[in-house]
Amino acid sequence: MLRVGFIGLGAMGLPMARNVARAGFPLTVWARRREAAEPILAAGASWADSPAALARDSDVVITIVTNSPDVRQVVTGPDGLLAGAHEGLTIVDMSTIAPTVSRKIAAQAAERGVQFLDAPVSGGTQGAEAGSLTIMVGGDAAALERVRPVLEAMGKTIIHVGPSGSGEVVKLVNNILVGVIGAATGEALVLGANAGIDVQTMADVIGASSGASWQLANQFPLRVFSGSFQPGFTTDLLAKDLGLALDLADEAAVPLYLTAVARQLYTAAQAAGYGRDDYTSVVRLFEEPARAELRVPPGRTGQ
Amino acid sequence: MLRVGFIGLGAMGLPMARNVARAGFPLTVWARRREAAEPILAAGASWADSPAALARDSDVVITIVTNSPDVRQVVTGPDGLLAGAHEGLTIVDMSTIAPTVSRKIAAQAAERGVQFLDAPVSGGTQGAEAGSLTIMVGGDAAALERVRPVLEAMGKTIIHVGPSGSGEVVKLVNNILVGVIGAATGEALVLGANAGIDVQTMADVIGASSGASWQLANQFPLRVFSGSFQPGFTTDLLAKDLGLALDLADEAAVPLYLTAVARQLYTAAQAAGYGRDDYTSVVRLFEEPARAELRVPPGRTGQ
Amino acid sequence: MLRVGFIGLGAMGLPMARNVARAGFPLTVWARRREAAEPILAAGASWADSPAALARDSDVVITIVTNSPDVRQVVTGPDGLLAGAHEGLTIVDMSTIAPTVSRKIAAQAAERGVQFLDAPVSGGTQGAEAGSLTIMVGGDAAALERVRPVLEAMGKTIIHVGPSGSGEVVKLVNNILVGVIGAATGEALVLGANAGIDVQTMADVIGASSGASWQLANQFPLRVFSGSFQPGFTTDLLAKDLGLALDLADEAAVPLYLTAVARQLYTAAQAAGYGRDDYTSVVRLFEEPARAELRVPPGRTGQ
Amino acid sequence: MLRVGFIGLGAMGLPMARNVARAGFPLTVWARRREAAEPILAAGASWADSPAALARDSDVVITIVTNSPDVRQVVTGPDGLLAGAHEGLTIVDMSTIAPTVSRKIAAQAAERGVQFLDAPVSGGTQGAEAGSLTIMVGGDAAALERVRPVLEAMGKTIIHVGPSGSGEVVKLVNNILVGVIGAATGEALVLGANAGIDVQTMADVIGASSGASWQLANQFPLRVFSGSFQPGFTTDLLAKDLGLALDLADEAAVPLYLTAVARQLYTAAQAAGYGRDDYTSVVRLFEEPARAELRVPPGRTGQ
Repeated sequence: MLRVGFIGLGAMGLPMARNVARAGFPLTVWARRREAAEPILAAGASWADSPAALARDSDVVITIVTNSPDVRQVVTGPDGLLAGAHEGLTIVDMSTIAPTVSRKIAAQAAERGVQFLDAPVSGGTQGAEAGSLTIMVGGDAAALERVRPVLEAMGKTIIHVGPSGSGEVVKLVNNILVGVIGAATGEALVLGANAGIDVQTMADVIGASSGASWQLANQFPLRVFSGSFQPGFTTDLLAKDLGLALDLADEAAVPLYLTAVARQLYTAAQAAGYGRDDYTSVVRLFEEPARAELRVPPGRTGQ
Repeated sequence: MLRVGFIGLGAMGLPMARNVARAGFPLTVWARRREAAEPILAAGASWADSPAALARDSDVVITIVTNSPDVRQVVTGPDGLLAGAHEGLTIVDMSTIAPTVSRKIAAQAAERGVQFLDAPVSGGTQGAEAGSLTIMVGGDAAALERVRPVLEAMGKTIIHVGPSGSGEVVKLVNNILVGVIGAATGEALVLGANAGIDVQTMADVIGASSGASWQLANQFPLRVFSGSFQPGFTTDLLAKDLGLALDLADEAAVPLYLTAVARQLYTAAQAAGYGRDDYTSVVRLFEEPARAELRVPPGRTGQ
Repeated sequence: MLRVGFIGLGAMGLPMARNVARAGFPLTVWARRREAAEPILAAGASWADSPAALARDSDVVITIVTNSPDVRQVVTGPDGLLAGAHEGLTIVDMSTIAPTVSRKIAAQAAERGVQFLDAPVSGGTQGAEAGSLTIMVGGDAAALERVRPVLEAMGKTIIHVGPSGSGEVVKLVNNILVGVIGAATGEALVLGANAGIDVQTMADVIGASSGASWQLANQFPLRVFSGSFQPGFTTDLLAKDLGLALDLADEAAVPLYLTAVARQLYTAAQAAGYGRDDYTSVVRLFEEPARAELRVPPGRTGQ
Repeated sequence: MLRVGFIGLGAMGLPMARNVARAGFPLTVWARRREAAEPILAAGASWADSPAALARDSDVVITIVTNSPDVRQVVTGPDGLLAGAHEGLTIVDMSTIAPTVSRKIAAQAAERGVQFLDAPVSGGTQGAEAGSLTIMVGGDAAALERVRPVLEAMGKTIIHVGPSGSGEVVKLVNNILVGVIGAATGEALVLGANAGIDVQTMADVIGASSGASWQLANQFPLRVFSGSFQPGFTTDLLAKDLGLALDLADEAAVPLYLTAVARQLYTAAQAAGYGRDDYTSVVRLFEEPARAELRVPPGRTGQ
């Protein structure tokens, strides 16, 4: 059975690590602050004193941290994973970072004989808890096959999307759509609410029409119509990802008009203090000028 | 059995009228040019010499024409439907027009004792042919119940969304989402294609992720990945609807940033000669600068 | 000496009419509410009981009203100017309206033997008071020459820009720039103010650099840096003009990305309650999220 | 007399260095490729073998290079200017780079007892040649006074705008306006040209109206109406600067809607192959869909 190391025990990482442990894989963890690891240690995981030590004791190391510098430090920094490189080690980075950075780290890993896969996920904290994430994997296809059982503990749809960096590209393409569709659904529904249309009715009709989307069906009822705006996926993180997507497009000289505007809307949401709320809180920016709220009374359910 | 009149035998109207006839309703039609009616006359429908004559012989009249002036003329013009008003007549206008115009016409109809429902549809030519349209109905709820059997011959989901004009509002809200999601899906996928990601793979992954939408699942494979761009729903019509949505928002002082930008993208598509192609041809605007095409070879199927 | 009729005694029209009277032209006025005319009647102008009566007593009639329906009614409505048509009558419409409407009215006037020039202005209430307006004239060049002395009482720069409707087109082109440059100057300066740069210093430097504009040099000190936001030219009127420009572009299938976004920003300013303030109040939308204000203490002057 | 060192002999730097030499300052230069320095060496300047050597022989060093990494390397790299630090040395960086990078380099310089001013310029190659640049200076005011005579050889308006980094902030604010006004002037004029208005007439009228700007008065006649698109200031450089401005705004959570859209328009211009042409070539993107060209026949002059 593959021995698994895990770094990044945040809102996504912790339930993912739990699912790995539940599937029976021997699990070792490391965290900058040991407190973050307590829940998973209590559930039987082992502790390593550094990423390097973690790597030495693992066949597969999963990393899911905040941004490019974090991944760089954990993998290539002093006492990082590559300092514990050994034959047969595979690193699966599930963070969302710049594809170019991911490719560079993969090249450094290859020099040490280590496989590095970029494998970002979609599905949010719910998907992480349910083990139903979609995982988009870039890098060596054979390496993916070896670690697939571990990924299957965390996700339902695991797709090899191309060479190193491709997983990150596909994730950014997806998150462009999260950002634009999320904001557009907000501005569109608010127009209807301003005109007096019942919010749940509108959601029912459009959910059965050509304007339907995963977000309207899932995120809006849970986060917006309920008024909770509980993350989920924060405005700060989505703004970061849209920035990465725009940087990628800039390098490739590909204009992205809607993405650019959506990004400014999330920046405005950050300025309004919604950075740590769910990204769907962008709708509050639209609600105020439209004198209308996208709320559905509890108990009122879709048709 | 309700006697049905039908005006507007275009790409949407003709298959809808056929479904009404198939369901066994006695059908009378009128068209500006009689040739347009030949197929449905050949299938057994009767001909009326004017909208007024059509109204006299019908319990329910369906209209589905291009724009506000067309509806005005057919309903309130000389020899229009209201000139044939009689007790129990209900007009069901399934065109997409300005909600304010729809409300005014409904008020004029009411003065003549005629019910006027606004009942625009979603589902495109496919939905029209399959009788699986979503129909969003504004106006008197009891009048809707009386004509519901006729609507059920054309659509699968028929929802009363509020008083007069509400159907049009919900349709415009839906079509904002068609316009923004359609263009955003194009610009996002093109970025991935430029980075070398296989188009079908990207569609598979995102279709199982938070960026998923009805359009990605349905319109893109059929119209874009195939390279056909066969309408469906033309760029000209979508541009018109986005214009109506922006006018509605302008009257209500509701800003619509993404809608405004999307509308300019469809204007650019019109300028590039794609007005009568499917609205998804907007992706061609993105393909050229990105030096990438969103095509999937025939035979290559989704996972 | 040409006898002048004048309709439209608003914030622009009243000082313009005064300048015509001061230049010695015999002046007759009409207004929907006679009170609006009191100041100019007190200054010696005559009163006419209807537009038709006004036309009968004038060689030149100036109109400067709010929108297309107003011009239509005053010129072609019952008891309108054309009802008082006589040989040698020239109507000079200085309103900002849709070019297509202007062309149609000119054609109707021509049928009655009346010259109709479209001659919108730039310069704001200050320019109206100082008699220093820029006047952009569409229509018959010889007719312009005949009425030029009257226009010279109101403006400094009077340019024939082409056939009927051309004045309106050039005005809309100008007002696109007013809208976009005004909002862009706001968003740019606010970024600098957020970073701690002194507002007056920034204005001095950029005023001497490639970002300089008439608005930065004139409108910003007077309306924004002072905090007055006194119109000038209201947000409502600018939003209307941007709408006309977008409609013109839509008819011509010309995409206008920046105009479309700017228009939504002014819509947002209307939603925030700034419709009757000067259009530069759009900067307040930027000030709040940026936690910075574009104000210069009184007495602090540019370099 | 201050001994001046100069690094960055490009399209801007070379004429600036010439003006310094002409003003009588002893001049030493260094360049990555010595060929770049030949013209100024021929004019009497001395050569230094490294930035460090240049610093040792200078009281003031001017740098004007492409981007943040270039400045970092030249100043703080091995054998960079700081390796030649001595009492009384002042570095004046006239490049356009990120304010945060500029501040960091200034701090490193301060540790070595060296003053580092950020002093970017406006005025383009014409201003560089004419010695009429606007120079916006951030950093120690007393240090600016000491080097002012050198700056006066290159510029006409030299303004101290605040502490370290402020010069860069003001430059980015200015270049936001260059980007947005440049593109907006293009899209607006193209709309008029599509409607048949004579381009020079339009420029005359708007130049005397509220839509006037430095760019319409200067750049458009020279680069656009002439059809030359000769840089000046390239699309690539403006796109870079807009990117820096958006990054600055992102850090500060300040939304910039128009800037974001303008940036995508310049990205589209890069994609169309205009990266090394003057930034005004963005108008070509608008000309094609509008079937209109902003050209004025030679000999046809403004009024």
